[in-house]
Amino acid sequence: MNQLSRVLEDAVDAFSSLPGIGRKTAMRLALHLAQGDRERPSAFAQTLLRLARDLKTCRNCYAFSDSDFCAICSNPGRDPSLLCVVESVRDVIAIEEIQSFKGHYFVLGGLISPLDGIGPEQLNLSALFDKLRGGNIRELILAIRPTIEGDTTAYYLHRNLPDPNLPVTMLARGVSWGSELEFADELTLSRSLSNRTPYPLTSNGRG
Amino acid sequence: MNQLSRVLEDAVDAFSSLPGIGRKTAMRLALHLAQGDRERPSAFAQTLLRLARDLKTCRNCYAFSDSDFCAICSNPGRDPSLLCVVESVRDVIAIEEIQSFKGHYFVLGGLISPLDGIGPEQLNLSALFDKLRGGNIRELILAIRPTIEGDTTAYYLHRNLPDPNLPVTMLARGVSWGSELEFADELTLSRSLSNRTPYPLTSNGRG
Repeated sequence: MNQLSRVLEDAVDAFSSLPGIGRKTAMRLALHLAQGDRERPSAFAQTLLRLARDLKTCRNCYAFSDSDFCAICSNPGRDPSLLCVVESVRDVIAIEEIQSFKGHYFVLGGLISPLDGIGPEQLNLSALFDKLRGGNIRELILAIRPTIEGDTTAYYLHRNLPDPNLPVTMLARGVSWGSELEFADELTLSRSLSNRTPYPLTSNGRG
Repeated sequence: MNQLSRVLEDAVDAFSSLPGIGRKTAMRLALHLAQGDRERPSAFAQTLLRLARDLKTCRNCYAFSDSDFCAICSNPGRDPSLLCVVESVRDVIAIEEIQSFKGHYFVLGGLISPLDGIGPEQLNLSALFDKLRGGNIRELILAIRPTIEGDTTAYYLHRNLPDPNLPVTMLARGVSWGSELEFADELTLSRSLSNRTPYPLTSNGRG
């Protein structure tokens, strides 16, 4: 706590409430905005007010959007029958950055985690099942992180599919490209060994 | 650039304009504020608006303050005759954290740096000289960082003192406490050797 200014200290508190920002960094950021032109904190504030007021959730995929339907869902060049299920908007952005997926997304809004009190009813699962009941999906891709919570969610989802014959795929798991086996964790290495795949690979054109 | 939302992207831009915050971190911070309660970005914005509107500069020392005179300058328990000159408010906060200095500060608002187009007239030097002319200062401490710009500023200040007999001191320079000589940079090590001090130290009670 600096004793100079409550106003400055409040800004430091606000920044240090953000994930990964400690007190020293928060102080640096707040002082950066405090020094010089007063337009800067003011413009920053306006941006955050717009975020609070204008940011919407796409009615189709639950990603963030500026209108009722997001840019991906309203793009006629994308294939709505290929549906990629992800945990959060962060994952949508991460997958969009590789610029190779041309289907639609569905954001669950979390993962099933009984320890954190998050059950299936807290996620957007009923909306997903409604969508799958629409019957226009040819493949459901589970792009969910490989953790206990991710696997639990994938298992629940698969068990409760309206159409048990719907093709469901998941992200490939194994050692990362470019990594050294020596530094792979034991679980990844042992599972990569037991789930070894035929060589050469043919399905993705790398073989 | 994510194609999902302009509003979100503006928030990412705002965060990534801050020092030391890259695009990935900015995205994480913006998504943190976007997800969940809309009160959060709104409260953050209000804090920044107060920073833009209410943060003042102390009329005496040029540090940040909530009123005309900062908490340090208005504290009767502090000694105004011991004046510590610093580059910025950050330095005031850093020195206050060690809780051993009981004098007053004076914030220059920068350092002389001809390459960046910053001359003496851009700093609060005339206010400092006015203060020194007041004659109530018994020691001027130059707590200015040991760089070309810092040394230039200290030199200019010393050369232009209204009273050339005023005792002026500067922060001790040398190898850091607890550091390994092996990892000290060459300039620090060579200057620490040429400016070696009598052993044992007596002036600060460590000898």
